[in-house]
Amino acid sequence: MQASSFTESLPRRVVVREMGLRDGLQSVATVVPTAAKLEWIRAAYEAGQREIEVGSFVPPRLLPQLADTGEVLAFAQTLPGLRATVLVPNMKGAERAMDAHAEMMLLPLSASHAHSLANLRKAPDEVVAEIGRIRAERDARGVRTAIEVGISTAFGCTIQGRVEPEEVVRLVQAVLDAGVDAVSLADTVGYADPAMVSRLFERVLRVAGDRLVCGHFHDTRGLGLANVFAAMQLGIARFDACIAGIGGCPHAPGASGNVSTEDLTYMLHSMGVETGLEFDRLLALRARVVQWLQGEPTHGTIWKAGLPKTMKEALHA
Amino acid sequence: MQASSFTESLPRRVVVREMGLRDGLQSVATVVPTAAKLEWIRAAYEAGQREIEVGSFVPPRLLPQLADTGEVLAFAQTLPGLRATVLVPNMKGAERAMDAHAEMMLLPLSASHAHSLANLRKAPDEVVAEIGRIRAERDARGVRTAIEVGISTAFGCTIQGRVEPEEVVRLVQAVLDAGVDAVSLADTVGYADPAMVSRLFERVLRVAGDRLVCGHFHDTRGLGLANVFAAMQLGIARFDACIAGIGGCPHAPGASGNVSTEDLTYMLHSMGVETGLEFDRLLALRARVVQWLQGEPTHGTIWKAGLPKTMKEALHA
Repeated sequence: MQASSFTESLPRRVVVREMGLRDGLQSVATVVPTAAKLEWIRAAYEAGQREIEVGSFVPPRLLPQLADTGEVLAFAQTLPGLRATVLVPNMKGAERAMDAHAEMMLLPLSASHAHSLANLRKAPDEVVAEIGRIRAERDARGVRTAIEVGISTAFGCTIQGRVEPEEVVRLVQAVLDAGVDAVSLADTVGYADPAMVSRLFERVLRVAGDRLVCGHFHDTRGLGLANVFAAMQLGIARFDACIAGIGGCPHAPGASGNVSTEDLTYMLHSMGVETGLEFDRLLALRARVVQWLQGEPTHGTIWKAGLPKTMKEALHA
Repeated sequence: MQASSFTESLPRRVVVREMGLRDGLQSVATVVPTAAKLEWIRAAYEAGQREIEVGSFVPPRLLPQLADTGEVLAFAQTLPGLRATVLVPNMKGAERAMDAHAEMMLLPLSASHAHSLANLRKAPDEVVAEIGRIRAERDARGVRTAIEVGISTAFGCTIQGRVEPEEVVRLVQAVLDAGVDAVSLADTVGYADPAMVSRLFERVLRVAGDRLVCGHFHDTRGLGLANVFAAMQLGIARFDACIAGIGGCPHAPGASGNVSTEDLTYMLHSMGVETGLEFDRLLALRARVVQWLQGEPTHGTIWKAGLPKTMKEALHA
């Protein structure tokens, strides 16, 4: 094959979807005050972020850090052009999201049976059935809240170990049949490598086509950005990330750190891919978030190394 | 294009060439005793490493850490099947390498004019001329020491900034015309991204074919493994790495950390690529090296995160 094929299908523009306020904060003990979250969202918006997951409609006793999700969502909805999303684990959460006129709700569906039981106390097929009921409820209400299903532990699971690609494909087909608007693939525990990403995204694209809208990678073992690159080669143009590389999964022992927003943005800008993001503002926001987290572990590389001399001017243009 | 094209050209076997004893130690102040270096080489050999750069024939006043290179090389030459290489910056070093019957000598050639002056006090074309004289001296002596030229700062330079791909291609052609056996491309200061790697390796492959034998990436900005993956897609099957991610370049301010041997090995094994390496032995060696370095900065991810559950048994097989 022609070698240029390896870059010719890279998207020209990529959306970096911020997960810090949900995937990030759900796995730290520190409760960030609501006022700080609103400042965070405004700063992210001013840095150019237009898709932000602002929280999760779960019972406050489970995740007190996210108990203010309703208030945070309401603020985010005042910012023009911002697509604020919320995670919902079940019908109750979905009802709250629809009550709040959320533009999009993200429903997690574990491809690992063991992880699904640990995380949602339901087997994957029970979750699929619940997703079908949520879709029906949305139709009954006639609201526009979009439904994206995130297939978690799609590349393996710390509890169960191996997750079969066939099971991922089967679940994607099942939720598409249930009428969801979009699906994404998540490496919840940092088990993916770029060859696995190429192969699994390729298989799921055959089933989902352009309804496969996003890749969600954790950088637990240093392969997060390599995995993003592999998915980009297949045309994927939206990636989840957390500022300062925070995040993880409380039910996946050993997992740590989403791909960092600022490192991902650096890679994309270096490759000439548009993001709409202002790098300096992201770094300033990172510093604020590190303060709010009061010593919780943070990650990332570019804030230490600094931009290459070759990029400093280009990025400010 | 067919999506499977992104993985079908990955090599089945990759050589991880250890640079820790040269690129690693040259950039730390700590002088590792000769006895420890011999223990290091033996442990690396027992872990399966068969290509090791053992030092550099430079004046001891410049790099006292590497003053024992002759002795270290002589030990490495006693290990059956080990390809021990040395870096040589000029004719004097090359003469020492040939006197010692080194199997291979690596000659650095900066594609950045400014870096070349800072590092070798010669312009790139003067270095090319010296390489020609070294090749002629080898012919005159009738010795078998192979000559590899490593094109450093091939993706940019902390002093000069941008390095034109045309200049890299021109220098590769010039040293091939001078009769060297092999060339490699080095991202000496961590400026490369995977799209740049795809494009530059493709261009150089057109000129050098299978004489382009190796990629040398620093992980300064977190893209080292993504860059390895991009080069592997073009069939490159040898990569330089330093155990514990040590290394850098004393004349490239801000540069730090080669790709770590153990992280690279993890990625390769995860992708099902053979390396001949035993992962546990590499981790044990890493711990020894960290001790010898007495608090010097070390890097890497997999030693902290541990192997995925899915790989633990497979890697011990």
